[in-house]
Amino acid sequence: MEYTINFKLDGGKDLMAPALAGETLLEAAKKVNLAIDAPCSGNGTCGKCRVKLLAGEAASEESRHIAPEEYAEGHRLACSTRVTAPATVYVPATALAYQSRMKVTDLEGARERAVFTSLQEELRVMGLFGDTGLSLVEARLAEPALDDAMADSERLVRALGETAGVAGAIQTSRYALGKLPKVLRESGFAVQCLVRNDKETSLILDVFPLGAAPKLTGLAIDIGTTSVSILLVNLETGDPIVGGNAGNGQIRYGADVISRIIESVRPGGLERLRRGIIDECIRPLVTELCRNAGIAGEQIYRVAVAANTTMTHLFLGVWAEHIRLEPYVPAFFAVENLRGQDLGIPAHPDAAVVVAPGIGSYVGGDITAGAFSSMIFKKDSLSLLVDLGTNGELVFGNAEFLMACACSAGPAFEGGDISCGMRATDGAVEACAIDTDTMEPRLSVIGGAGQKPAGLCGSGLIDIIGELFRCGIINAKGKYSREGKRVQRDEWGIGRYVIAFADETEQGRDLALTETDLDSFIRAKGAIFSAIKTMLTMLDFPMEAIENVYVSGGIGSGINITQAIAIGMFPNLGLEQYHYIGNSSLSGAYAMLTSQKAAEAVAGIGKSMTYLELSSHPSYMDEFVAACFLPHTDASLFAPRA
Amino acid sequence: MEYTINFKLDGGKDLMAPALAGETLLEAAKKVNLAIDAPCSGNGTCGKCRVKLLAGEAASEESRHIAPEEYAEGHRLACSTRVTAPATVYVPATALAYQSRMKVTDLEGARERAVFTSLQEELRVMGLFGDTGLSLVEARLAEPALDDAMADSERLVRALGETAGVAGAIQTSRYALGKLPKVLRESGFAVQCLVRNDKETSLILDVFPLGAAPKLTGLAIDIGTTSVSILLVNLETGDPIVGGNAGNGQIRYGADVISRIIESVRPGGLERLRRGIIDECIRPLVTELCRNAGIAGEQIYRVAVAANTTMTHLFLGVWAEHIRLEPYVPAFFAVENLRGQDLGIPAHPDAAVVVAPGIGSYVGGDITAGAFSSMIFKKDSLSLLVDLGTNGELVFGNAEFLMACACSAGPAFEGGDISCGMRATDGAVEACAIDTDTMEPRLSVIGGAGQKPAGLCGSGLIDIIGELFRCGIINAKGKYSREGKRVQRDEWGIGRYVIAFADETEQGRDLALTETDLDSFIRAKGAIFSAIKTMLTMLDFPMEAIENVYVSGGIGSGINITQAIAIGMFPNLGLEQYHYIGNSSLSGAYAMLTSQKAAEAVAGIGKSMTYLELSSHPSYMDEFVAACFLPHTDASLFAPRA
Repeated sequence: MEYTINFKLDGGKDLMAPALAGETLLEAAKKVNLAIDAPCSGNGTCGKCRVKLLAGEAASEESRHIAPEEYAEGHRLACSTRVTAPATVYVPATALAYQSRMKVTDLEGARERAVFTSLQEELRVMGLFGDTGLSLVEARLAEPALDDAMADSERLVRALGETAGVAGAIQTSRYALGKLPKVLRESGFAVQCLVRNDKETSLILDVFPLGAAPKLTGLAIDIGTTSVSILLVNLETGDPIVGGNAGNGQIRYGADVISRIIESVRPGGLERLRRGIIDECIRPLVTELCRNAGIAGEQIYRVAVAANTTMTHLFLGVWAEHIRLEPYVPAFFAVENLRGQDLGIPAHPDAAVVVAPGIGSYVGGDITAGAFSSMIFKKDSLSLLVDLGTNGELVFGNAEFLMACACSAGPAFEGGDISCGMRATDGAVEACAIDTDTMEPRLSVIGGAGQKPAGLCGSGLIDIIGELFRCGIINAKGKYSREGKRVQRDEWGIGRYVIAFADETEQGRDLALTETDLDSFIRAKGAIFSAIKTMLTMLDFPMEAIENVYVSGGIGSGINITQAIAIGMFPNLGLEQYHYIGNSSLSGAYAMLTSQKAAEAVAGIGKSMTYLELSSHPSYMDEFVAACFLPHTDASLFAPRA
Repeated sequence: MEYTINFKLDGGKDLMAPALAGETLLEAAKKVNLAIDAPCSGNGTCGKCRVKLLAGEAASEESRHIAPEEYAEGHRLACSTRVTAPATVYVPATALAYQSRMKVTDLEGARERAVFTSLQEELRVMGLFGDTGLSLVEARLAEPALDDAMADSERLVRALGETAGVAGAIQTSRYALGKLPKVLRESGFAVQCLVRNDKETSLILDVFPLGAAPKLTGLAIDIGTTSVSILLVNLETGDPIVGGNAGNGQIRYGADVISRIIESVRPGGLERLRRGIIDECIRPLVTELCRNAGIAGEQIYRVAVAANTTMTHLFLGVWAEHIRLEPYVPAFFAVENLRGQDLGIPAHPDAAVVVAPGIGSYVGGDITAGAFSSMIFKKDSLSLLVDLGTNGELVFGNAEFLMACACSAGPAFEGGDISCGMRATDGAVEACAIDTDTMEPRLSVIGGAGQKPAGLCGSGLIDIIGELFRCGIINAKGKYSREGKRVQRDEWGIGRYVIAFADETEQGRDLALTETDLDSFIRAKGAIFSAIKTMLTMLDFPMEAIENVYVSGGIGSGINITQAIAIGMFPNLGLEQYHYIGNSSLSGAYAMLTSQKAAEAVAGIGKSMTYLELSSHPSYMDEFVAACFLPHTDASLFAPRA
């Protein structure tokens, strides 16, 4: 039997989906291209696909995410509710927020720009800044006449050949050809050309009247499994103009790369995943950035991309199946011959495209870019880079060697498998302090004044767990061990701590951290610590050999390192040895965008970095199990430092 | 007032067009993307837009193309009929035939292939054949393992680096990357790669299992103002597989390049013209060729294009306005950096694209390609190339020098401004003999047995006018001077010769050649002869200096040279000095497709050929006027040869 499900979206829009009896509401929604959040791939664990049955009937499985009184009011998980009859279903904004919320920030003069300004300084000192391979060259042409009827393009090339700074064979791009006749005549044959200098050839990308002040821009793109961050950069000054981020549109196919790969090998899947990241995420975001900066897409003349191996494959439409099958071999590490029009996003068709190289199936271009932007590849001292994304990746080494590994931390730090987790956008609790006596929390929430809390992002999660542990509200196993009005237990006896009561939250229901969430988180933090320990042990270094730790990832405004050490996530080193460097993948892409030498350095890192496959390392499992306590089964590792 | 015009198409389709009072039916039809033939741009002269008013009313101007009894039956010219009320209008197939008829010919073993087989022989002798810049290289890869987890692309490049024949840096195209993982594993890591060798880099375009027999194909494209001809060629053997031609979809904007340029500079015009040639002509034709040959578009790895200067601009979407404005300067002569995906037609995204260079606004790549394929650029003897297309172009010279000019012959040879003219497709009269006494004609018609005549193509036109002149039916001024059942005069006294009566023709109405048509033709042939004479005089050569004449153009199966000389179109040389070489532009594109050296030779011709601007030459007008007689005012030029 086929029924019609009327999805009523927050904001008033109605979508009519035909659904077969037995299909889930999540599946029915997909048919009309309504992507309800389901970072757990629809297996009922994340609780993010909560909708409300307004009319009609449907068969629901019980869920720990829906309290009995909520069930009575019509609340359901879309993934666990099957169609049995026609129904009307309300889809709240929260059920769409994880994936799609787009945020654009004007960076000219903004606080968010500081990280790039200081990186710019550092790169400048190293001679790795400003060589974009693009130059703006003036040319004054003899006007054509009946006895000098040379074509415009050849006339321009002749004039440029007489100018210093343009070497080798000069060619004109089709885009520049298209507008050349008009620009020459509007400018009285005095123009400036944007030239892309390749090894043997100089390609005229664009042409403007002399005296015009064209905006020459480029894109630095970080494609994360959960979030995408993009900078639109002024290529003449190297300054970011506007930045944006949005949820990766692929998230409807699961929070982690494995779910994405599985979906991608289904019929039509590769194209669906490419659409998810390009049509539904990067293209609209770049379009918005362009609108904001007042430029046309064709004024994007260079693009730098950093992403993990799976994301790079899916972004380029490359078959990714073998990334997840032993012996875990990707289709490529590096790709070199791309131009703007290969990408399917707004850009000049002949824009140069640089992609950070991966070194293994689970250590991708985001990590080589991060090893660059953290500068650990240039330092004599031994450094550790910890990149906290949907996965966790580590790089250890110095100017002489670099070793990297990946640990399956899961999507905890980006909120994926935490019931109240969310990305670090408006409404996310990013920091928290708990009063030891009263157990009352004080929250810091991302967003404008009056923003109510809606969930926890990575940094908020670390903070709150650190506080719960410090206050003795939870024990070393992550179980609630004190009683009070904020500590509650459900009918199955699973404890939870209410961070904010229903009347204080965005959704109007309690925001709480359950023991199931704690368990997910402890496994995630255990994965990271045990990976660090395994890698150093293997290289025969004690933990104390680490001189500096660079923590990166888009998990909030930063991490409370004291808490992260206290719960056994990071090694017990001095606070002054820790540096939070934000999104090191985006910073690396930014460096590659603004400098060809930087891009070459990242390529060099890709070639020299050693990949350690943790899963095949005999002691890793033992280390992991030992780390799944607060702070650790070996308490001496976290004893107060002298 | 707005009215609805119901266009009933031959074949049964109905189109409802909203039309303002005063608009012509031609304009109303364009609004619903119905392109009624109008090679004269809708000024009432060509008579090709004949439709029939079935119901309703409309205001019509009188036309010599519609007889009074036809008018009474509802026949109208769409361009000269204005909307005054709702109406129902029948559009016969003939009103759509000039532009869109597509014809595909299987060339494997066909007669039409002979011209390419003999060209192939000639090119092979000259060492200008078979170097496509593509090679199929075998590679056997070590299978990946946990301790050798190099990515597929890098693994392939490593294996190729150990193979002879692949030089320089090796890169993998995005297309090949996309399928590489599957092909490697399906083939047991034994593959063959299609590699494009550029100056410094080798790019892997595609990858196939070892032992597979992939079809490697390329396209040779000739874009004429009226017709487009395309060959799909097997790049391994160099043999054409299938050929096709179709009307240039831009023809609704006028028969000549000037009308097209004028339309292209109107708002949105450039895009409309690009759609006309790509979306409505080349893409469907190539799709049909691919279907016919059983290949996917991505198996087209190299594309060669030859076209006149305006067509090349409009094909690439380049602003063409200045081609027609003094001093007649195109945007470019040569364009070098194109890849398949720049074209918007089926092809591998990284296919190499070569475009024959132009040398002036009215001597384009079709002529440099023709100067190559006619081989006049290699000969010691003095040759003349006469290319009869919508325009007429000439090249004179030998291995030491080449000079080219264009003459405004108008579209007569492709049927454009001849009332009964048509392209050389089914139904076209391509040859004719007239009995001197009875004045009865014997026609040879293109098409299968029983094909009724529908019009005259260029070769038929020359033949019939030659016969009319020989039989004394017309005089030296192109006026009818005998009487009989086939010679008739209309109410204005304009004479016509009935080639076929209504009951013998495709359309069911008389097929006749009017004195207006004769006038158009005599101007066209006069333009050609006077151009030849002016160019030779300027170079101080007598006509007799021409040792060989190569006649090209897609105007039928060939030209009756005796007739062409008798009417004063071609110089009075020996018949054995004349060679009809078919479509020399397509042959040139074919050579450029099958050989990089040939493409370089065409580029060399573009650089060395001199362009003569006839219109600025003082004696040209006098020569032209003198040539507008049959055969010429100076009869001694066409006196019987000793």
